[in-house]
Amino acid sequence: MAGSSEPTRVMVAVNESSIKGYPHPSISCRAAFDWMLSKLVRSNAAGFHLLFLHVQVPDEDGFDDMDSIYASPADFQRMKQRDKIRGLHLLEHFVNQCHQLEIKCEAWIKQGDPKEVICSEVKRVQPDLLVVGSRGLGPFQRVFVGTVSEFCVKHADCPVITIKRKADEAPQDPVDD
Amino acid sequence: MAGSSEPTRVMVAVNESSIKGYPHPSISCRAAFDWMLSKLVRSNAAGFHLLFLHVQVPDEDGFDDMDSIYASPADFQRMKQRDKIRGLHLLEHFVNQCHQLEIKCEAWIKQGDPKEVICSEVKRVQPDLLVVGSRGLGPFQRVFVGTVSEFCVKHADCPVITIKRKADEAPQDPVDD
Repeated sequence: MAGSSEPTRVMVAVNESSIKGYPHPSISCRAAFDWMLSKLVRSNAAGFHLLFLHVQVPDEDGFDDMDSIYASPADFQRMKQRDKIRGLHLLEHFVNQCHQLEIKCEAWIKQGDPKEVICSEVKRVQPDLLVVGSRGLGPFQRVFVGTVSEFCVKHADCPVITIKRKADEAPQDPVDD
Repeated sequence: MAGSSEPTRVMVAVNESSIKGYPHPSISCRAAFDWMLSKLVRSNAAGFHLLFLHVQVPDEDGFDDMDSIYASPADFQRMKQRDKIRGLHLLEHFVNQCHQLEIKCEAWIKQGDPKEVICSEVKRVQPDLLVVGSRGLGPFQRVFVGTVSEFCVKHADCPVITIKRKADEAPQDPVDD
């Protein structure tokens, strides 16, 4: 078998919790990561190389920054820096876990529309497999919210595995994550 | 990690080649099987338990049996037996490979509409993962042919991974497999 060949490169898309905010990962990306560790990687840490991608959505309306005062271009620069740091803390969560389990990994941040950026990063990085979490929304919610996982299954240039979070982990509003 | 726990149970849907017929596996299910071995199972044979399901479509118009003579109920019985034996030879191909690689497996045949039967067998058997091959048909072909993989991604009660066959393995008529 391919035990002696290059490790399997698995890209994992991760995002922040919409409830707890940074640096907490969303329920569904945590579920996808845990599933992958226990069902695919298992005890074979040396056989896998994980690639964590976090896509930050540019905060166009600045709603999160209501209480901030912007007095100079440097303030905006600082805001961008702060966002980036928050993203890094999210990635740190996953990288630390991999380090403990002795699984090789890389992690990086991109900005843009998550579904588009994930697919373009798949093109660029060419992983063997893309793992994405899914909230498991019903058809009604999907129309309004859109789902990243569905888009990736259709458009990503590599095999994609979608992991739904468990029903008992779904928050009161299933659109939350 | 989960190295000491139960092996990961992977259901693999397999079908016969539409070009070479039984006992040859289709290009796409062979690609899915090979991908799974080299990218997921790797050297960790003990960590996986493979479940091969072959769904036979009942031959309603009897077109394949043009040259046969049916003189008694026993003849029909024999025809059914023959179909079953063909299916077993297909499964043998995969079971033999697993045996050589020392991967535990099971294999069985069901009759019916492949997409419906695969999803109902997932409900019954509850694998950790379903692997299906895909011809990677374009939207125009999909409308007329329907695709089992797309249906399973939407309806199967477990994570699903769809493996497209390689472009250079596609036969002249992409609907063939």
